[in-house]
Amino acid sequence: MNIPQSSNPRFVIIGGGFGGIALAKKLRDKEAQVVLLDKHNYHNFQPLLYQVSTGGLEPDSIAYPIRKVLQGYPNFYFRLANVLEIDTNKRKISTNIGDINYDYLVVATGSQTNYFGNKGIEAMGMAMKTIPQSLNLRSLILENFEQALLTDDLHARDALMNFVIVGGGPTGVELAGALAEIKKGILPKDYPDLDTRRAQINLVQAGDRLLPAMSEVASRKAERFLEELGVNVWKNIRVADYDGLHVTTDTDTSFNTATLVWAAGVSAVSIKGLDAKEFLCRGNRLKVNEFHQVEGFKEIFAIGDVAQMETEDFPNGHPMMAQPAIQQGRNLGDNLVRLLENKPMKPFVYKDKGSMATVGRNKAVVDLPKVKFQGVFAWFVWMFVHLYFLIGFRNRVVVFINWVYNYVRFDREARLIIRPFKKQNQVDRNKLMQD
Amino acid sequence: MNIPQSSNPRFVIIGGGFGGIALAKKLRDKEAQVVLLDKHNYHNFQPLLYQVSTGGLEPDSIAYPIRKVLQGYPNFYFRLANVLEIDTNKRKISTNIGDINYDYLVVATGSQTNYFGNKGIEAMGMAMKTIPQSLNLRSLILENFEQALLTDDLHARDALMNFVIVGGGPTGVELAGALAEIKKGILPKDYPDLDTRRAQINLVQAGDRLLPAMSEVASRKAERFLEELGVNVWKNIRVADYDGLHVTTDTDTSFNTATLVWAAGVSAVSIKGLDAKEFLCRGNRLKVNEFHQVEGFKEIFAIGDVAQMETEDFPNGHPMMAQPAIQQGRNLGDNLVRLLENKPMKPFVYKDKGSMATVGRNKAVVDLPKVKFQGVFAWFVWMFVHLYFLIGFRNRVVVFINWVYNYVRFDREARLIIRPFKKQNQVDRNKLMQD
Repeated sequence: MNIPQSSNPRFVIIGGGFGGIALAKKLRDKEAQVVLLDKHNYHNFQPLLYQVSTGGLEPDSIAYPIRKVLQGYPNFYFRLANVLEIDTNKRKISTNIGDINYDYLVVATGSQTNYFGNKGIEAMGMAMKTIPQSLNLRSLILENFEQALLTDDLHARDALMNFVIVGGGPTGVELAGALAEIKKGILPKDYPDLDTRRAQINLVQAGDRLLPAMSEVASRKAERFLEELGVNVWKNIRVADYDGLHVTTDTDTSFNTATLVWAAGVSAVSIKGLDAKEFLCRGNRLKVNEFHQVEGFKEIFAIGDVAQMETEDFPNGHPMMAQPAIQQGRNLGDNLVRLLENKPMKPFVYKDKGSMATVGRNKAVVDLPKVKFQGVFAWFVWMFVHLYFLIGFRNRVVVFINWVYNYVRFDREARLIIRPFKKQNQVDRNKLMQD
Repeated sequence: MNIPQSSNPRFVIIGGGFGGIALAKKLRDKEAQVVLLDKHNYHNFQPLLYQVSTGGLEPDSIAYPIRKVLQGYPNFYFRLANVLEIDTNKRKISTNIGDINYDYLVVATGSQTNYFGNKGIEAMGMAMKTIPQSLNLRSLILENFEQALLTDDLHARDALMNFVIVGGGPTGVELAGALAEIKKGILPKDYPDLDTRRAQINLVQAGDRLLPAMSEVASRKAERFLEELGVNVWKNIRVADYDGLHVTTDTDTSFNTATLVWAAGVSAVSIKGLDAKEFLCRGNRLKVNEFHQVEGFKEIFAIGDVAQMETEDFPNGHPMMAQPAIQQGRNLGDNLVRLLENKPMKPFVYKDKGSMATVGRNKAVVDLPKVKFQGVFAWFVWMFVHLYFLIGFRNRVVVFINWVYNYVRFDREARLIIRPFKKQNQVDRNKLMQD
């Protein structure tokens, strides 16, 4: 991989997400060589992907070049690479651009959409875990409306204007709210020759409440906000299958839709060589101890979504969200410095800073450790926190400007099909509609 | 195409570029049904594409949804469509989404890259006429540097870091200048483990001066600006061929480069049915009279790059730039209104407002009808004019913020490979390098 030998120990970090970046920052100017590998050349701010999908933000505003994060970090090497396999005996990583040895390895590969083995949904549904996926969804939504204009078949037109979002976590709730706002504020102006009131936004949740990781009051309020916006909230329904048009469930309820967004589960991104059953917990997470060491290894660590540190408060590991990843990255960074200085490592203690979700304009829910609130103030808190955690001054300013503009104008201007999206079997879908 | 019948005459406009949009605005609230067709759902501000390619701007900032332009225009219908053929006898347009009849037709299809029949350059070179093309070029530039890191073969590494831009018009000059600034300001920081001083930016011009459409003093000054930035300017050299690595010319000079950008020519986008030899001038432009009527038709008009109106001052038609397109669109719009009111049409008179090009920070050249100037003030004028003509308040603010940021920080943050680019024959290129 063309990385110079060094007399310092080599730390290889796989993944430039919240955890990997937080960790890397701690290793600046230390007696270590650090190699960061990622399959993208940018860090991406996943909590705002739904705004890219719904034309509220430009993709570049929520991404940040990893090389820029590492500017002025001596002994740091970034490589754009797909990791293929890890040989834990030889301490060697194989990638598409060659092999690399490590002294210490940090796995921070994050998570990916989990379809729980459902091939139909995987083939025909949309995911929203990466920027390209979010742009595909944006294109599909816009293309659906363009296509709806062209048909006189009411059945087909309704399917094109119906949306089914599966999963009542923050992603599902936020996307459903944003689509409802588009339906209300933009569609009637953009498509005066289409009866856009017929567009339906359905949010389907398997459990008995939305935002199950938040408080009961947040769940209740989020549901009420969504209903105010005209979203159909379906609870206690489990989506069974999807063929590109028909959604079946475990109940009598079914949907006809050209767009199913699957936000109902993630699993950790495992790597060959570290994916033996003994390492993995539910959802492919790697079991780690309180120092983030992967069970059975002293020199392999895991942080963020991919790591499962079982504690009294979190018997199944910490939530797969930005905050635990950032805190774990920082803790591990400090510990690796201690390791270099031959000092004992300190166990990780998670500090719950609360959680939040936004449903729409002036509508958000916030659970802080000591206080819970909803509505306008919560919405401002949500925006402030997201701006604060966004990397890069320019990104913050541009996102802020966009939000002010969208707020004042009830608009989202980035509704551009720059990346036309074709489902691999769109033809089949058209055929389905004729049936 | 599912467009309602109307008692008013139907105007079909093909193309939502500068000309088509300027024209459409004139027809608002008139006794006409207007159908605008475009293969994209957005208008795109072509003069700033090079800033998308070089990471200075986000693509969404220089694009604007066509439906938003037409919001609140009664009797306007936008359709996302590829026009396939025109039957001028039946006054019928065939598209990928069905047929449509017209009473009056306006062809505003613009221009595309012209390779003058050179298959090698077409296959292996990069164009920069659309947003997807600009994003592909951005990805290729960044991928080249990532790849350069991985090789010890100095020959291959140089080819990856060399850039050949063919064409000394505004596009070539502006792209060369931007790349030179990246080489100076960003590469050494982003790639500390690469000797980025070896990166070469070559601008190759067939004629004996750059910016041939501008004044001699502008040409001279632009060339000096480029040389100050370290660009190699080659004049009186005609590029002959390119195989993905070797550039041959009509002289002894040759280049090894993984990136050839072809900005040396455009031709009008013609449509089947209107492409008979009798209609077409050089570069596939449609010959029109002073009312923009295509020769031989009273009901078919052409404006912008696709139209060639031969006048005393412009025996080969007006320059293929934004200003003539906008002015022609407005003039034709007024004339179509006169036509509806049974008034005589007024011939088009082009008002030359001057031209300008920017080379880099504080370096631009401006030719106004009465005064020519270069340097810092010219650069501010260039920015002001481009912001002014950009459509959309949000776009203007976001572009302005980006420019201020880039100016203050000597930076361009949108250097993201969101759309990984694979040349169809990249494998061949790798093979070439081994030879």
